[in-house]
Amino acid sequence: MTNYLFSSLLGALLNLLVHTNIWAQKSTQITRLAKLEIDSTQLEAYKTFLKVEIETSMKLEKGVLTLYAVFEQKRPNALTILEIYANKEAYLSHLQTPHFKKYKEATKHMVIRLELIDTDPLLPDLKIKKYK
Amino acid sequence: MTNYLFSSLLGALLNLLVHTNIWAQKSTQITRLAKLEIDSTQLEAYKTFLKVEIETSMKLEKGVLTLYAVFEQKRPNALTILEIYANKEAYLSHLQTPHFKKYKEATKHMVIRLELIDTDPLLPDLKIKKYK
Repeated sequence: MTNYLFSSLLGALLNLLVHTNIWAQKSTQITRLAKLEIDSTQLEAYKTFLKVEIETSMKLEKGVLTLYAVFEQKRPNALTILEIYANKEAYLSHLQTPHFKKYKEATKHMVIRLELIDTDPLLPDLKIKKYK
Repeated sequence: MTNYLFSSLLGALLNLLVHTNIWAQKSTQITRLAKLEIDSTQLEAYKTFLKVEIETSMKLEKGVLTLYAVFEQKRPNALTILEIYANKEAYLSHLQTPHFKKYKEATKHMVIRLELIDTDPLLPDLKIKKYK
């Protein structure tokens, strides 16, 4: 009887540990779609600022895993960015960087609409392969 | 005068070469957003099929560079996939693979809406970094 109680308790504890860990793994990464509409008359200037912002973030911030930006061919001022941050701290720290603040300030009159959509990735660890 | 004509012609030729090359580089990669709405009652089954399809494509097809799939947290049956193929041939060949055909057949009654949006990436060679 004592053995049974002990193994039940151990089972419950293990279960708790496993689930806590799974939850922690799932909740660590922040994956988001940013959808933007840009003022068409300022599109080229906007692209220049965004390019610098992305290249600098990818280079200097280890927790910024990607900021893959695509413009729709049929609506060239409609932009979607797949944003992946290692964790919440990485995201909050990104917002405080000089390069992000500079981009935000410089482009605030160019962005007509901004929608941030929190998402759950199907395969969080998937990468973009190099073609060879 | 002959020198001037010669250098103008040479300049024009060089210009043509550079632009043809830039155009070729830009047109090679196919980058697309696939937006899907899935039947909520079949969402878990759909995810299983999609997961297998993506993992198999990434493993077996060198021209499938990513199929990064995200589900919106506020609309769990709304799915966006960032699809990158090395070139048109890689995409056309992908459509003919047994794993893609199996996925397509198995999920055809689960997909309520499918929209394919051709895009131009801002930085085509950007990757998803590994966090370390």
